Amino acid sequence: VPVKAGIVLSTERMNSAPGVHKEDLYVEAQAGLVTEHLHSAVEARGLFYPPDPASQSACTIGGNIGECAGGLRGLKYGTTRHYVLGLEIVTPEGRVVRTGARTVKSVAGYDITRLMVGSEGTLGVVTSAFLKVLPLPQARRVLSFTFSDLEKASEAVSEILGSGLVPAILEIMDETTVAAVETHTGERLGEGVMLLAEFDGTGAICDADASRTREIVEGKFGGRVIGDVGGGRRETVWKARRAVLPALTRLSPTVILEDVTVPRSRLPEMAARIEKISERYALRIAVFGHAGDGNLHPTFLTDRNKHDELKRVNAGISEMMRACIDLGGTISGEHGVGLDKMPFLNLELGKAGYDIMKRLKTSLDHKGIMNPGKIFYDA
Amino acid sequence: VPVKAGIVLSTERMNSAPGVHKEDLYVEAQAGLVTEHLHSAVEARGLFYPPDPASQSACTIGGNIGECAGGLRGLKYGTTRHYVLGLEIVTPEGRVVRTGARTVKSVAGYDITRLMVGSEGTLGVVTSAFLKVLPLPQARRVLSFTFSDLEKASEAVSEILGSGLVPAILEIMDETTVAAVETHTGERLGEGVMLLAEFDGTGAICDADASRTREIVEGKFGGRVIGDVGGGRRETVWKARRAVLPALTRLSPTVILEDVTVPRSRLPEMAARIEKISERYALRIAVFGHAGDGNLHPTFLTDRNKHDELKRVNAGISEMMRACIDLGGTISGEHGVGLDKMPFLNLELGKAGYDIMKRLKTSLDHKGIMNPGKIFYDA
Repeated sequence: VPVKAGIVLSTERMNSAPGVHKEDLYVEAQAGLVTEHLHSAVEARGLFYPPDPASQSACTIGGNIGECAGGLRGLKYGTTRHYVLGLEIVTPEGRVVRTGARTVKSVAGYDITRLMVGSEGTLGVVTSAFLKVLPLPQARRVLSFTFSDLEKASEAVSEILGSGLVPAILEIMDETTVAAVETHTGERLGEGVMLLAEFDGTGAICDADASRTREIVEGKFGGRVIGDVGGGRRETVWKARRAVLPALTRLSPTVILEDVTVPRSRLPEMAARIEKISERYALRIAVFGHAGDGNLHPTFLTDRNKHDELKRVNAGISEMMRACIDLGGTISGEHGVGLDKMPFLNLELGKAGYDIMKRLKTSLDHKGIMNPGKIFYDA
Repeated sequence: VPVKAGIVLSTERMNSAPGVHKEDLYVEAQAGLVTEHLHSAVEARGLFYPPDPASQSACTIGGNIGECAGGLRGLKYGTTRHYVLGLEIVTPEGRVVRTGARTVKSVAGYDITRLMVGSEGTLGVVTSAFLKVLPLPQARRVLSFTFSDLEKASEAVSEILGSGLVPAILEIMDETTVAAVETHTGERLGEGVMLLAEFDGTGAICDADASRTREIVEGKFGGRVIGDVGGGRRETVWKARRAVLPALTRLSPTVILEDVTVPRSRLPEMAARIEKISERYALRIAVFGHAGDGNLHPTFLTDRNKHDELKRVNAGISEMMRACIDLGGTISGEHGVGLDKMPFLNLELGKAGYDIMKRLKTSLDHKGIMNPGKIFYDA
């Protein structure tokens, strides 16, 4: 469908309620739909859309698709790319194209759907999506633990997952983060370095998994249970966890949130490297993140007006990017490249990998009008 | 890494045992590894690689990636694209590129990994892969049911899935298929139209899911349980199921296997349409497939030397492709486009969608040397 004179994207349509197809386990959502609204719409029908970026009350499905948003439940359930079945996109030439399908199985040509997911708006405009949903788990249960330090907590994470347990969520927060959240929310969370684990499934599974986790953590790593909640009260815990970033922004004039991801067995080493970077460059770094999938968000607490400190921050970030590649990880788990990661993309991809992406960009957007200046430093 | 004078791919390396990284839940597999060998290698370590194409004793991981192979467990576990974390590929220019990561979360630039999955070797050569694995389920249990006709069985499928149950497998076989398998394998399977369901998880979950499924099927759709097995005996059932295609090839000189997929609530209608096509064109069509994910393999039993019949077969296939697109489905769930689906690709994609794929092909393989003549009729 060639378009006459520019497309008018109706905001009304963009925000409209999702079409829920319960028996086929998919929903049709518009790009402007707020992620949290999708969650509540499907949960009301006994269904479940797993991707849950911490910004879910503000971010939209279109944005989630643009960045391949992850969130807390990535460990068990994967990220946005695992739930997008098909898309409606508008190409740089103004053509409307449907990609993918309404079904999980589909291989009619190249996977344009997943090429669009995480492409940060640089290949076309996503207007709506078919998203896979699951039956809502019958029960959920949250355990919170406290540890003496970050390495002990990360070792516990490796051990929990190595034992065959698959919690729906496994989050880590250092002392700075925990204290900031408590001050910001007025909610008592715990103390020291914390791990938050959520189990889902039937009630019996939640119970069995929770007690196996307790055994591992308490027996071997000196962790201590400080909370054990199900039902509505667990929502309080996750609300506090989602308040981490707003809470940290109160601690310093500038916060720079990183997004490094390593294979989870390398988490203790990554934690140690971050510690060293913090010492060497005399920087305050709060560490929290989705420990279960190796995805940490070390957050630099700084002030962009202090020129000298900012130089050290940049040097620290640079070293952190190299560290995560060294450890077999990636410079971005779920936040994408945008502007900030541009200088490091080549480091991960190598010249030939970078070149492939540039060629794809040029082939679909040869005029360079789609979110120009992002991802590629030479775009 | 530019390559000097053509790459020699060592077959020894291509078939070597997978590197299993248990605590990080991934394996590194070479492209030439036979899928079944990957299954046994990871299961020996208490892990699980879900994609299970029926040809698993002969097909390879490289081929599975090329086609985005599915299989019986697609319903609960998805297909190959859901398990490929990263790839080593050789580009048409002979450069070696690593795509993706070893972690589930990764968004450093475009998703080249999933662009390669299902691209049928037309964009580059896959030499090895990082594949996600899961902890091996503790228990599995198989129920087999018999029904009076295909529509009743497909209605039962819709009802089972609509109730929130997620069997690991839900297979359908019509009478022709069941009889052919019994003759071929000498194994007694059942009678009439059959449904085979597998549940996995803990023993308690298998039991609970199996009894809920029995209630639905027996109460409402006149289905009858004819087998209920766990442990080693269930492997006999799946071995028989995987023998469907070899069994059907004995029924006629030529068999043409189709691969249509529709949203699962449309299965009864798709079954009815296939029935009508069979009547209108006076053709024998055996129907079996992965009913749980809406993926049917209607198989035309014919003889390519009977010129007249072959014409009717082609007309029947053409109508079947239109039917599945009508019903919101796709012309290929897991077998890809290759040569046979070429004439229908445009039907599903439309001109603009087809054009995007062609542009990607040209941008990465401008000389057209990668599996030439496949997918695109004008390549």
